[in-house]
Amino acid sequence: MLSLTAVLVAVVCVLIVWIFKPADRSLQKEREPEARPWVDEDLKDSTDHHQVQEDVDEWPESEEDVEHIPFSHTRYPEKEMAKRSQEFYELLNKRRSVRFISNEQVPMEVINNVIKAAGTAPSGAHTEPWTFVVVKDPDTKHKIREIIEKEEEINYMKRMGHRWVSDLKKLRTNWVKEYLDTAPVLILIFKQVHGFTASGKKKVHYYNEISVSIACGILLAALQNAGLVTVTTTPLNCGPPLRMLLGRPPHEKLLMLLPVGYPSKEATVPDLKRKVLDQIMVTV
Amino acid sequence: MLSLTAVLVAVVCVLIVWIFKPADRSLQKEREPEARPWVDEDLKDSTDHHQVQEDVDEWPESEEDVEHIPFSHTRYPEKEMAKRSQEFYELLNKRRSVRFISNEQVPMEVINNVIKAAGTAPSGAHTEPWTFVVVKDPDTKHKIREIIEKEEEINYMKRMGHRWVSDLKKLRTNWVKEYLDTAPVLILIFKQVHGFTASGKKKVHYYNEISVSIACGILLAALQNAGLVTVTTTPLNCGPPLRMLLGRPPHEKLLMLLPVGYPSKEATVPDLKRKVLDQIMVTV
Repeated sequence: MLSLTAVLVAVVCVLIVWIFKPADRSLQKEREPEARPWVDEDLKDSTDHHQVQEDVDEWPESEEDVEHIPFSHTRYPEKEMAKRSQEFYELLNKRRSVRFISNEQVPMEVINNVIKAAGTAPSGAHTEPWTFVVVKDPDTKHKIREIIEKEEEINYMKRMGHRWVSDLKKLRTNWVKEYLDTAPVLILIFKQVHGFTASGKKKVHYYNEISVSIACGILLAALQNAGLVTVTTTPLNCGPPLRMLLGRPPHEKLLMLLPVGYPSKEATVPDLKRKVLDQIMVTV
Repeated sequence: MLSLTAVLVAVVCVLIVWIFKPADRSLQKEREPEARPWVDEDLKDSTDHHQVQEDVDEWPESEEDVEHIPFSHTRYPEKEMAKRSQEFYELLNKRRSVRFISNEQVPMEVINNVIKAAGTAPSGAHTEPWTFVVVKDPDTKHKIREIIEKEEEINYMKRMGHRWVSDLKKLRTNWVKEYLDTAPVLILIFKQVHGFTASGKKKVHYYNEISVSIACGILLAALQNAGLVTVTTTPLNCGPPLRMLLGRPPHEKLLMLLPVGYPSKEATVPDLKRKVLDQIMVTV
């Protein structure tokens, strides 16, 4: 009788702890999402991220091969290749992140062309998982500025921590983003974390973040080639409100925001140097 | 006495369960890493991923501002901008992922220039977190092929699942990667998940994967501009063995592998179309 009571109590306690401890842990997690602003993960729009990863439906894929066609290629003589590659490097090496952008309008034909260039990027299984939202409307630009400055002030004051803020101090970056009003065009780049088949089922987008970042690299090169300036920004924690402001669907997540225009007359840039070839390339 | 025993037993049981349950959970996690090959995460080299995220040291950053200098800008007339941006789009729109690469040598000067161009990419807090490993040595190329084909066969047979394999069938992609032997140059692009300060402490690399992917986008544009072809590959699960084969340190993780060269004479490409501007751009 004595030991029976003890054993019963023990079993009940074990059960209670077993059941409630994990529940408690997951609750805690929900209450305090980890704040690690220096980890790439934070760019993700958390509103339905896990759902996307976990319940992507099986989707029936047509088995037919796409026809293969001969590849047509433009080959240059070696001297010409050396010259072209040297000139392309020199053009891109003049690119700088410019935070002082004039309010002068830019030709929309050029914006269309640079986005068409970005759309030539390769993507996992040719899913082309990108949406480029071009914002010219002054009211919308101002609302974007309000959303970003509100979040950025919190980021700078609380989330980012001393070391990140001090890293950015060198670049004279802070939470006042005047360029969001002055730049004639803002390009907000969304990655589609999944797509849809013709029948409306979810379609997996392999490596969507890497694919869209590659497209952004091509976009930056295209802007530089056209004589426009920008600065690559990744507004922390602003993805969901900006997505909703622009009426984009939940499977699109903000990856980057590029204010685009001509530099303002008094534009300055930090006197930074780039690593030389030996510091970034190894030959085997 | 009766109830005292029961209470004691209860307390001990609660403590035992409390202590061992989480330990058991984490053990389980180590034993069975989640296999989700369609999620971007899998590109990461898991050998010390969590360590990197969790024990990055606080590092003393010099507070001094970098000097700001006037930004010098080349502005083209509007007609010229339209022409340049149109031509750049047309050049890049001819780029295709080419899986049939000739064994003809390419000029190293051109390879140097395209990597210099990639190195002009912007990066989080100007950390420049990239290493480009250029492999020309035939034996090393063959070892790379052996590592990748071994893993890729397992990927295709087991890890990827029916739907991914069937997606890739359209592209006539399989685990035989002849181009790893034939291409005169393989460029393996590593992201540095952290760097080091002068005193040897860990230095955070913000948004390193996005930064390196942007650099890869510029690299693809530079290769196309020079008249060379490549295919963007992300060898699943091959990061750690390839990193070790090439003697790269643990804080560098493989992001992409680009075989580079001229197309072989009989090269074909799948007859895929790209989305048109209306399908990728929204104007507000």
